[in-house]
Amino acid sequence: MSYRISPVSPEGARAVAVAESLIPALRERADAADRASRIEPQNYRDMQTSGLAAAFVPEELGGLGLRSIHDWILAIATLAKGDGSAAIAISMHLSATRGLAGVYRANAPGSAPHERAKSFLEKVAKGEVLICSTTTERGNDNLHPLTEAFAHADGWRINGTKHFVTMSPLATHINTNVRMRDGDGDHITNVLFPMATPGVRQHDNWDALGMRASGSQSISFDDCIVPVDALRKIGPWGQWSIAVLVNRTLANVPLVGAFLGLAEAAFDYALAHQRKAKGAADRAGVPNALAEMEILLATSQSILARMGEQLDAFMAQSRGGADCTWEQGHELMKDYQSAKWVVNRNAIQIVSQAMDLFGGGGFMAGNPLSRLYRDVRAGPFMQPHSPIDARDYVGRVLLQQFPER
Amino acid sequence: MSYRISPVSPEGARAVAVAESLIPALRERADAADRASRIEPQNYRDMQTSGLAAAFVPEELGGLGLRSIHDWILAIATLAKGDGSAAIAISMHLSATRGLAGVYRANAPGSAPHERAKSFLEKVAKGEVLICSTTTERGNDNLHPLTEAFAHADGWRINGTKHFVTMSPLATHINTNVRMRDGDGDHITNVLFPMATPGVRQHDNWDALGMRASGSQSISFDDCIVPVDALRKIGPWGQWSIAVLVNRTLANVPLVGAFLGLAEAAFDYALAHQRKAKGAADRAGVPNALAEMEILLATSQSILARMGEQLDAFMAQSRGGADCTWEQGHELMKDYQSAKWVVNRNAIQIVSQAMDLFGGGGFMAGNPLSRLYRDVRAGPFMQPHSPIDARDYVGRVLLQQFPER
Amino acid sequence: MSYRISPVSPEGARAVAVAESLIPALRERADAADRASRIEPQNYRDMQTSGLAAAFVPEELGGLGLRSIHDWILAIATLAKGDGSAAIAISMHLSATRGLAGVYRANAPGSAPHERAKSFLEKVAKGEVLICSTTTERGNDNLHPLTEAFAHADGWRINGTKHFVTMSPLATHINTNVRMRDGDGDHITNVLFPMATPGVRQHDNWDALGMRASGSQSISFDDCIVPVDALRKIGPWGQWSIAVLVNRTLANVPLVGAFLGLAEAAFDYALAHQRKAKGAADRAGVPNALAEMEILLATSQSILARMGEQLDAFMAQSRGGADCTWEQGHELMKDYQSAKWVVNRNAIQIVSQAMDLFGGGGFMAGNPLSRLYRDVRAGPFMQPHSPIDARDYVGRVLLQQFPER
Amino acid sequence: MSYRISPVSPEGARAVAVAESLIPALRERADAADRASRIEPQNYRDMQTSGLAAAFVPEELGGLGLRSIHDWILAIATLAKGDGSAAIAISMHLSATRGLAGVYRANAPGSAPHERAKSFLEKVAKGEVLICSTTTERGNDNLHPLTEAFAHADGWRINGTKHFVTMSPLATHINTNVRMRDGDGDHITNVLFPMATPGVRQHDNWDALGMRASGSQSISFDDCIVPVDALRKIGPWGQWSIAVLVNRTLANVPLVGAFLGLAEAAFDYALAHQRKAKGAADRAGVPNALAEMEILLATSQSILARMGEQLDAFMAQSRGGADCTWEQGHELMKDYQSAKWVVNRNAIQIVSQAMDLFGGGGFMAGNPLSRLYRDVRAGPFMQPHSPIDARDYVGRVLLQQFPER
Repeated sequence: MSYRISPVSPEGARAVAVAESLIPALRERADAADRASRIEPQNYRDMQTSGLAAAFVPEELGGLGLRSIHDWILAIATLAKGDGSAAIAISMHLSATRGLAGVYRANAPGSAPHERAKSFLEKVAKGEVLICSTTTERGNDNLHPLTEAFAHADGWRINGTKHFVTMSPLATHINTNVRMRDGDGDHITNVLFPMATPGVRQHDNWDALGMRASGSQSISFDDCIVPVDALRKIGPWGQWSIAVLVNRTLANVPLVGAFLGLAEAAFDYALAHQRKAKGAADRAGVPNALAEMEILLATSQSILARMGEQLDAFMAQSRGGADCTWEQGHELMKDYQSAKWVVNRNAIQIVSQAMDLFGGGGFMAGNPLSRLYRDVRAGPFMQPHSPIDARDYVGRVLLQQFPER
Repeated sequence: MSYRISPVSPEGARAVAVAESLIPALRERADAADRASRIEPQNYRDMQTSGLAAAFVPEELGGLGLRSIHDWILAIATLAKGDGSAAIAISMHLSATRGLAGVYRANAPGSAPHERAKSFLEKVAKGEVLICSTTTERGNDNLHPLTEAFAHADGWRINGTKHFVTMSPLATHINTNVRMRDGDGDHITNVLFPMATPGVRQHDNWDALGMRASGSQSISFDDCIVPVDALRKIGPWGQWSIAVLVNRTLANVPLVGAFLGLAEAAFDYALAHQRKAKGAADRAGVPNALAEMEILLATSQSILARMGEQLDAFMAQSRGGADCTWEQGHELMKDYQSAKWVVNRNAIQIVSQAMDLFGGGGFMAGNPLSRLYRDVRAGPFMQPHSPIDARDYVGRVLLQQFPER
Repeated sequence: MSYRISPVSPEGARAVAVAESLIPALRERADAADRASRIEPQNYRDMQTSGLAAAFVPEELGGLGLRSIHDWILAIATLAKGDGSAAIAISMHLSATRGLAGVYRANAPGSAPHERAKSFLEKVAKGEVLICSTTTERGNDNLHPLTEAFAHADGWRINGTKHFVTMSPLATHINTNVRMRDGDGDHITNVLFPMATPGVRQHDNWDALGMRASGSQSISFDDCIVPVDALRKIGPWGQWSIAVLVNRTLANVPLVGAFLGLAEAAFDYALAHQRKAKGAADRAGVPNALAEMEILLATSQSILARMGEQLDAFMAQSRGGADCTWEQGHELMKDYQSAKWVVNRNAIQIVSQAMDLFGGGGFMAGNPLSRLYRDVRAGPFMQPHSPIDARDYVGRVLLQQFPER
Repeated sequence: MSYRISPVSPEGARAVAVAESLIPALRERADAADRASRIEPQNYRDMQTSGLAAAFVPEELGGLGLRSIHDWILAIATLAKGDGSAAIAISMHLSATRGLAGVYRANAPGSAPHERAKSFLEKVAKGEVLICSTTTERGNDNLHPLTEAFAHADGWRINGTKHFVTMSPLATHINTNVRMRDGDGDHITNVLFPMATPGVRQHDNWDALGMRASGSQSISFDDCIVPVDALRKIGPWGQWSIAVLVNRTLANVPLVGAFLGLAEAAFDYALAHQRKAKGAADRAGVPNALAEMEILLATSQSILARMGEQLDAFMAQSRGGADCTWEQGHELMKDYQSAKWVVNRNAIQIVSQAMDLFGGGGFMAGNPLSRLYRDVRAGPFMQPHSPIDARDYVGRVLLQQFPER
């Protein structure tokens, strides 16, 4: 027995098996990519070839037909055992393709949205499309994007700069949120368009403590023109809306999975080392430390598995989020915050204790734990919410004083 | 949404609903029983009348037909919201009756064991039987009982003293472990016999920090004679065995549920208070503390629910534990330890923070939290293992150095 | 070596030695007083006879001549090893007498304040006076007393009710804060008057989780008349003032000492038990738990000793607080909050781990740890600030946004 | 007020002032040296020119005349605010020169040891000598050095390899422990000899997670010949001895100071940032996080200051450690372990929370916190003891089962 998470759907089982098969190759390339602070293209080719990048593409279009959020989380956790950067990068692509699969299924065959989504998903299945996603801007939270779309003769003209655009050096498309003002008001809108669009500028400025192979550079949009139907209104600018609450939760919970995966990798590595170490059990501190790590890991696995199960149930009961109420949206976000808090903190602690178990050797750059220790620190920064704001948010939801902004 | 646990079986849903219905009455009587350090008989009459005490009795014999360990845990957690003492007391009775239901089902109708179990279970359903259980002796762990059964012309003669015999002032029967030596070796055996047996002496010495209404007095056996078939060998004396590992885990995990229930009660009480308190949200510390409690609670609910699900899966896969290996037995015990560690510690912390939210009023004896704070402290003492030994045990299992004793 | 605190002044060394000598008697009476929820008069007679109750009385008036806050803290911690209730009770009396000694020294011999203080202090030295102190009212913080003094022909007429009036059943005098409005504004004033004043009503309603022998009943004032010079203005009602910041810190830091003393008692008790226990060192969890407790204790001793040293330095540099600025007042309060946070939390944890080291026996009411566990929980309630508000307060002072109220 | 540490001796005040003056230059060079994983020679020239490297050299020989261990700790903490690598590197040099100053003072002028030490210390004061120190070997603890000195016609022949030889690329001399077997037994001996000795080989292999500018490469000794009087016996090989207990504590406590300094730097940086940030106080999580950091910092400062005071007292009372007993040696080591545990853990937590307060920007390599986060992780590795073994050691000393090895 153990608290390790198992897939809950057959499609998920396939996706997780594929992810599992990719671990050795991802792991082998991780050190060099980390040192070079460069995204590793072969990882993404492997994820495309193996079908993982098409996990959410319906089976009839050549994908794995994944639907379960729980199993998506698990697939990301599995990939992160190989490489954390690759795991978070592909998760953002999966999030975007999951949305497209929803459009494909929700609309009648023959309708424009269905056919557009179908064509796009087929390209995903063929490995012709890789979508990077971002919501981050400097000094801004997700509700107040300053990148803006202005009405233009040929559609929309987009200007602004986004940060932390993970996987963008390899992406064929970018998915992001921009402000748009029209007669109906001031909106947050979602837009997906080709990276090759004139005016898209890659800054090649990713230089971080960890997740160095994630290619999370800045991207500027200088008068990028996108078609009139490329924009989709999500909710009012500067405010929480049900759609934003649901979407941010769905997109971000699998990222939490990556930090669980990093912790599992560190734990497995340290445990294997100690099982082979002479006299480990005679050193009282060794079983003690392993137990502390095991308890943290069991805790993380449990809360994240429960969150995944609940998200699947929520999607089933709310028609994919369509029937979600304002209160439910905040409850969802609150529960995601609890899982994020626990998993991220425990992951940092587990990796740190794993290093302790290696003595001075764990501090050497050549020890994989020294990379995991840096990668795992990315968890708390992920928005919403940072550890600075998470408790206040959760407490306000509990008091039923649901934040408007 | 929330991490609150839900039943996984229809019988469990019924048992939990019954438990839920008992909360108000249990809660109302809790303060007086606590102050008097007396078990409250009406609580047990209510549990018998409502069917809860017969939860594990098969439906055809008049019970609720419960089989799920997960739902047993949840039923105990639910009762503990009313009264922690009653919850742990009845859990021990349920454990004993679950064992009898297993015997009833495992043996063919007409066979002696089937018929004996049937008759006993029917009495349970009628509220004629209440079984207290104990394994504790002073200065001893569970593997080394010194209470001993000696061969005797009329069966067995039992001598010794047990402590922490919860619910014994009301029990009709006692279920305990005794040492027995015969030609095959030195054994731990299980024995169930009437409290009215000559030589059973109740010490009326229960005077503890918490769980004061649990009636956990000491019981002495002075030459108690029990029939020859009353003893059942479990495993070798002084050693872990598969049966002991499995039985102790199954019997004790639901007790952990009681501490979750106490924490839930404290959380609900504090949250309701703050929702009504003027200016709670303007006091930054209030949402902050509520969030800290919520995260602890979500964590506890998740790990305990997962443990319950895994136990149900284990029982299904191992034919009720019959096919369990030595390694699996220890893995089971290890995972129980993780759940126990997390839930007990979090429960103490949650109740403590709930008190903080009441200010000085939370420290007054009249505030229910002051009882919960004492009751919840019973968790760590429950064997196996205390917080002193749990980490060493878990670590040794991880190192695959499975403790023999 | 060890982090145990030592006296820094010769007078302190005497006071601490006296406190030390009282431990066995206090300890012997603690269980009975706790069970009866009654203050034990003999403890206070002993503290008077031994000179401890006159610790702050100048030597020429028959006292110990104590001046160091550091050593006051240590004396209270020492007493708490015997009985926590007695320690906090006498600390409030010491706080009031320390103030009187200040008046005596600050005014010229022959002046009215000098002579009044002298006469009072001589009575303290003779054991004729015992002063209880309180600031607490129901649902109120210390800045907003609703007990009020109204101008009256014979001085002032006082009405209101105070809670948590520790040691009041034995006190000859009461020291408290009341509101007073006059032409100059709305004030917090301090008043000291005989308990025998007509209109003083003792509620005999102390019934708490812990500190049950502290006699912390409620006291009502129904038209109590006090002389015109009995009132001393401290600062504006409803607002922090330098005087309130300084006085509350000075009066309350020694109370934190009591919780350190409880933790030390629990640690010493558990360590002595384990040193005698057979096979303690072979049970890996025992040294591990002792080390965790030792580290917590060392931490508490260090921060509280440093706080004491700093308070002594502050008193020397600021002419007893007279030269303190607004910023310094809040810095002082902030640093007290840090010490309180650390010592109170660690104390609860240390007592709890000490219980773990006793197994089930630690949960029995007869084990002193079961009383310590309840007594030590009183720490967080002490105002200002509860754990709910402490972090917000400390953070605001760090941001130099000094709270006005 | 604050818990910040202040010097306790005039010489210490001078050393700390010098350290303070070096902070800006150290800080300015830190990023480049970290990225290059290269020790920065100018830092050491500055420390020599400013007199810091001669802190322990008696004033009559041109040094600062420092004697207080407390102030040594504080000087290292101060330097670490500029650069952690430089702080730990120079501390090892200071440790060696402190030993020489002891020899100089303990022996009569004119005696060989006095004159040799004098000549050496004068060179230290002139900046002609820089001593690196190490005890570490791969897979070994400090009691079992395998680097060995063999008797040789010209003195001793040394063979072996040391790791983590901090500052060795710049050092003129190396101070280390080697095994030596003679007719009296098997010894740990201390040896100090020039880096220019034939057979000393620098591996230039320092590539670590943090402290990248510390030059902590490996050094091999291939038949290095040192004079017959270069070896000094410390104690038996493979066993704790009083001398080893005292020396390791004295040498290592100041290293703990470096981790306090890193935490102070991170705290100051985050606090300054938040004091300027718009709306920081309106974001409830900001004061909350600052308070959590402040409490951790106050705790660390308190325990380390107390440890320093106690070490000064110990040195005074034990004639520089000469009168130390076996029990006292272990008590000393135990108390060092407590301080190390608290300071290292808190430091990691403080730097981590400082990063949280910067949001995503704190994760960028250009933010100093991202270097501090890696540097501060070096603390737990320092021997003795790692976090794996510290609790077991402390617990055994408490149980008076003083480890022999």
